[in-house]
Amino acid sequence: MTDVLAALARILEERKTADPSKSYVAKLYQGGLDGILKKVGEEATEVVIAAKSGDAPQILHEIADLWFHTMVVMAYCGIEHDAVLAELARRFGVSGLEEKASRLE
Amino acid sequence: MTDVLAALARILEERKTADPSKSYVAKLYQGGLDGILKKVGEEATEVVIAAKSGDAPQILHEIADLWFHTMVVMAYCGIEHDAVLAELARRFGVSGLEEKASRLE
Amino acid sequence: MTDVLAALARILEERKTADPSKSYVAKLYQGGLDGILKKVGEEATEVVIAAKSGDAPQILHEIADLWFHTMVVMAYCGIEHDAVLAELARRFGVSGLEEKASRLE
Amino acid sequence: MTDVLAALARILEERKTADPSKSYVAKLYQGGLDGILKKVGEEATEVVIAAKSGDAPQILHEIADLWFHTMVVMAYCGIEHDAVLAELARRFGVSGLEEKASRLE
Repeated sequence: MTDVLAALARILEERKTADPSKSYVAKLYQGGLDGILKKVGEEATEVVIAAKSGDAPQILHEIADLWFHTMVVMAYCGIEHDAVLAELARRFGVSGLEEKASRLE
Repeated sequence: MTDVLAALARILEERKTADPSKSYVAKLYQGGLDGILKKVGEEATEVVIAAKSGDAPQILHEIADLWFHTMVVMAYCGIEHDAVLAELARRFGVSGLEEKASRLE
Repeated sequence: MTDVLAALARILEERKTADPSKSYVAKLYQGGLDGILKKVGEEATEVVIAAKSGDAPQILHEIADLWFHTMVVMAYCGIEHDAVLAELARRFGVSGLEEKASRLE
Repeated sequence: MTDVLAALARILEERKTADPSKSYVAKLYQGGLDGILKKVGEEATEVVIAAKSGDAPQILHEIADLWFHTMVVMAYCGIEHDAVLAELARRFGVSGLEEKASRLE
């Protein structure tokens, strides 16, 4: 599953020149940052609702939606998704599997 | 960067038996689902604020926080992170790089 | 302006028997709690976005939306809006105008 | 209960010159807009969690928190709370108790 995010990042990049009437992503870009961020807030709320409902398939679905829309934020703002993974690796010293940060927040 | 999420998932699994006074993740588990979900809502809001501020390093930082806490939701609820990646791959037909879904939501 | 919330609460009560095809509120009730809560998350995000944009009329508009949808939550859950006002009065000892609570959270 | 919001708005105005070490509100102002908005996102999430838990006293408590922090946003941004009530009245034609807007959003 490892290259899914890299492949998705490439797609999101390609969609920058796509037709908004044919691509959901291109339509999101066209709507601008505020519209994309509304989706982030919306999907985060849906993760919370699904988790409180104890509905595992729905949790999965909503987290996929949330990750997707944060990937769109990154593409829109010119941030590499690899940088997020690197940040997570740095915090958790993933090569050594140690939780280095005393607190994540 | 590809195995960062897999390594993080393993760490989150290991933390289930860790001492809450020594591990932020174990403390999150101990606080229960509501506390974890509050973090998801909080971090999503911080992504929105950072993006509106146009602060790229902060956006990156907050998205890492948000992904991390959704990974904790998954660990807590017994959902494999691979399933989220598979869901994203399915929607975007990542092998063929086609955006198959007319609408993601 | 003082009786606006009381009047709104009465309307929300009346809408419980209204036709969902003719009333937005009746449609919200019909959609159930999850749909109402999604609106709360959505409108809160829109308050944040409007405030970060420094757009005062939009902030006002979004806060009205947010208050409205929390009123719908209360109506749906059988909570009197007066109880929220009483809670705010209690915390702030509004008769004496003193901030009694050391911390609100 | 009708003047609670007016009294709260006066308190929030007064707190603009209060000592942040003694007043939670003054401390919020000192933290700036981003800190206040984080509270809005946080409290909105807590409303959702409480409602999904079916915990009426908690819902009430969290909605009071959410209204309070939106009042702080308004005070910080120089928006009169009466304007929010007027907006709600306008939409619902509260004098005539008719739901004039076909859709609120």
